[in-house]
Amino acid sequence: MKVALLGGGVIGGGWAARFLLNGHDVAVVDPDPDAERRIGEVLDNARRSLPALSDVALPPEGRLEMTTDVASAVAGATWVQESAPERLDVKHALFAEVQRHADDDAIIGSSTSGFTPSMLQEGAARPARIVVAHPFNPVYLLPLVELVGDAATVARATDTLRTLGMHPLHVRTEIDAHLADRFLEAVWREALWLVRDGVATTEEIDDAIRYGFGLRWAQMGLFETYRIAGGEAGMAHFIGQFGPALAWPWTRLMDVPELDDALIDRIAAQSDAQSGHRSIRELERLRDDNLVAILRALKGRDHGAGALLNRHDARLRRMSIEASGDDVDARGDTDVDTGVDTGTGVEAGEIPPAAPIETIRRTVPIDWTDYNGHMNESRYGQVFSDAADAVLERIGAGADYVARGFSWFTVDIHIAFLLETHAGETIVASSRVLDGGGKKLRLFHEMRRADGTPLATGEQLLLHVSLETRRSCPPESPVDARLEQLVRAHAGLPPP
Amino acid sequence: MKVALLGGGVIGGGWAARFLLNGHDVAVVDPDPDAERRIGEVLDNARRSLPALSDVALPPEGRLEMTTDVASAVAGATWVQESAPERLDVKHALFAEVQRHADDDAIIGSSTSGFTPSMLQEGAARPARIVVAHPFNPVYLLPLVELVGDAATVARATDTLRTLGMHPLHVRTEIDAHLADRFLEAVWREALWLVRDGVATTEEIDDAIRYGFGLRWAQMGLFETYRIAGGEAGMAHFIGQFGPALAWPWTRLMDVPELDDALIDRIAAQSDAQSGHRSIRELERLRDDNLVAILRALKGRDHGAGALLNRHDARLRRMSIEASGDDVDARGDTDVDTGVDTGTGVEAGEIPPAAPIETIRRTVPIDWTDYNGHMNESRYGQVFSDAADAVLERIGAGADYVARGFSWFTVDIHIAFLLETHAGETIVASSRVLDGGGKKLRLFHEMRRADGTPLATGEQLLLHVSLETRRSCPPESPVDARLEQLVRAHAGLPPP
Repeated sequence: MKVALLGGGVIGGGWAARFLLNGHDVAVVDPDPDAERRIGEVLDNARRSLPALSDVALPPEGRLEMTTDVASAVAGATWVQESAPERLDVKHALFAEVQRHADDDAIIGSSTSGFTPSMLQEGAARPARIVVAHPFNPVYLLPLVELVGDAATVARATDTLRTLGMHPLHVRTEIDAHLADRFLEAVWREALWLVRDGVATTEEIDDAIRYGFGLRWAQMGLFETYRIAGGEAGMAHFIGQFGPALAWPWTRLMDVPELDDALIDRIAAQSDAQSGHRSIRELERLRDDNLVAILRALKGRDHGAGALLNRHDARLRRMSIEASGDDVDARGDTDVDTGVDTGTGVEAGEIPPAAPIETIRRTVPIDWTDYNGHMNESRYGQVFSDAADAVLERIGAGADYVARGFSWFTVDIHIAFLLETHAGETIVASSRVLDGGGKKLRLFHEMRRADGTPLATGEQLLLHVSLETRRSCPPESPVDARLEQLVRAHAGLPPP
Repeated sequence: MKVALLGGGVIGGGWAARFLLNGHDVAVVDPDPDAERRIGEVLDNARRSLPALSDVALPPEGRLEMTTDVASAVAGATWVQESAPERLDVKHALFAEVQRHADDDAIIGSSTSGFTPSMLQEGAARPARIVVAHPFNPVYLLPLVELVGDAATVARATDTLRTLGMHPLHVRTEIDAHLADRFLEAVWREALWLVRDGVATTEEIDDAIRYGFGLRWAQMGLFETYRIAGGEAGMAHFIGQFGPALAWPWTRLMDVPELDDALIDRIAAQSDAQSGHRSIRELERLRDDNLVAILRALKGRDHGAGALLNRHDARLRRMSIEASGDDVDARGDTDVDTGVDTGTGVEAGEIPPAAPIETIRRTVPIDWTDYNGHMNESRYGQVFSDAADAVLERIGAGADYVARGFSWFTVDIHIAFLLETHAGETIVASSRVLDGGGKKLRLFHEMRRADGTPLATGEQLLLHVSLETRRSCPPESPVDARLEQLVRAHAGLPPP
């Protein structure tokens, strides 16, 4: 997919990172000679954080082209994303030029907070192709995109955004500021009053958010949280109790504070006192590392934004399987280069290659490191645990087999640590079966850098178990036969 | 510390859990015969989630007493927390009775959202002792408490709340609804409009929060987030841009929606469609597991609510060291029972006991489990990694030694898995030195259930390194001498 981005600021740069790191070529149109540097900075941040969200390898990064020429950038593009300044005349002029040169059915998404699709579409050649696609900063980490506009275009846009690991939310009614920014604006107005009236500082307000309801809202929203607070009495009963408070003056939102110089100066000074000891670059990385850790935590719970990431991993895994299966030449090349079998799935009756299996290819996420500044030893164990899962998936003993009530439990592992491993590094594990008779399965894993440098080895003994009785038992058909084929294929390999 | 709680609902129960699980005795006053069951349910939830926030053992749980008698409950209590219905006459009557029977300087905290300290204090015998201490649901997991009132009482309350792992936020100005609820109220009003006008459903609104800015607000608040978005141009420049939007009708907050039956029914029906497939009990556990995972993720980053938890762990660790050091009899008993040395710190010249060291005592958190429904194998490795850290701390090679530029890196580990381990279980590790000459250190760890059932063993080889050169080197003084003493003390133990 070719993508054209109009505007290369913080938001445009975030979009660039989303598309590039998911394997798409991107042309960025920005007249500012400084745009390339700015995009480069956003990309640097994205490259150290976005891959850490995935427990599988991302596709090879797409190609970035910087240009000032709209016509060439949008020619052949299936998605054009506009992140220009919030001026309607500027956007109208851009859309007109885009639709002169782009394919008729190219989707034009606008990152606007302030304009509705009707306003954006005025005078357009193909108005239905122009939709609001409003993302949230940092675009390369936060999944939400608000989509507003023509239903057919929104449906196509939804499919594309899902392949980027995002959560497209169809806002079905045109309304100023869409949904999320209406809440942000309400909180912002109230916060301005509190600072203006000297009730609280910027830091106190931030703490009132991040030590309390901010933690709740990372995983459930307003209504589900209140449903729980209401308990068994039910939602209607709970909301009824709110009635009186609505009439009380619990906010100053009936009125809008004047944003004069005195208020701006006060906020800026308080913000300096709160965060001025860190540069913006440091704050960005702090934020991104926190977001990666939170998103990975939700991934472990398979909930909300974490469930979304798990679905994205499954999609990437399928794509990688299709790529390796469909392209026999490429797979043959890989075998010659590394001696590793990167194919996936052993059909019953098929003879697997006599080569170790590439079981893991991933980036080391920040939450895997410890006080020594390197990947904690326990994460080497996790890599080998995941590698064993990949071997089992290869012989047909994946999630379906576990759902049938069978699994393998590790009873013994011996890990040799050869070199330190750091956050952001790509690591590759290959695995082979040393022995696999009956209930027992003995695996040998090697973990290397992408350049082949050995990092660790692991020898692991697993027992096949019934998840019902939690006791060992022999594997079921056809998994047993596939395992036997793999044992035979690996029997001829030289000892590790 | 003795604590009296007035009111045993969701909030009172949450307070009970905070105090009990941090080792304090609690008397709950509630006239409702159903209160004990309700508190029990909150405690069940708290017992499975709160201990998982700590990477050290919590103190032994305090004693819970249910009563209908205010006088006996508050006698000798240093903290009285009122979580009664939001009726000022009810609260005034309670405070009068409390101050008749409680110590003069007992702190009386009110969980009220709606009343200011001035309103609460009307007619009180000792008004300065009555402060707002407003927590957030679930009280046993969310750290924020808004404190409003007399500065001296707030200062004392702050000290107490910190020992519970909470974040007391001093709201310096009396204002309706304090700080956080003003933001919640603003968002709630806007959300009511959106549902009433059919713009969005409860589920769409929740998704607009939890896939976007909710994730940001779990770690930074409003102002620090905007500071980053503003970039190098600075906060003042960024806020200036907001000026025009303030004049736009981006919210309907100028007006308050009428909470009529039609709107209540609509919200209840949408909430049923969104969450009705799960019971409130299931939703509570889902929420709590998510919050534990998010808080533990922030702990790994040592940021915000996670930094607070790390400080709480350090406090618990200090308390446990003081307890074991001060109470020689109790320590002697422990040695007889388990053959394990639970003391801490080897002074140079002192001969350590010829017994394995208790290095880990903790609860298995939910984020350590995997698809097999038990603790993932890699977490056994993490327990032994943490156990090695505890041995090193014992010989004076803790954080200070790492700050001096030295550490031990694991080069080899052999783990035998004996039994499955589950979330919520208390695990205990004991460790001994097998060999410790020069750069090399060989440890043997045993991990057991609290009842002594063996779960796993680990034999680990570590090398002493310079963190500057990342190469091995001999340990520095006095760590080398202390290690030698430990080697000698453990030399006489029978082979594992």
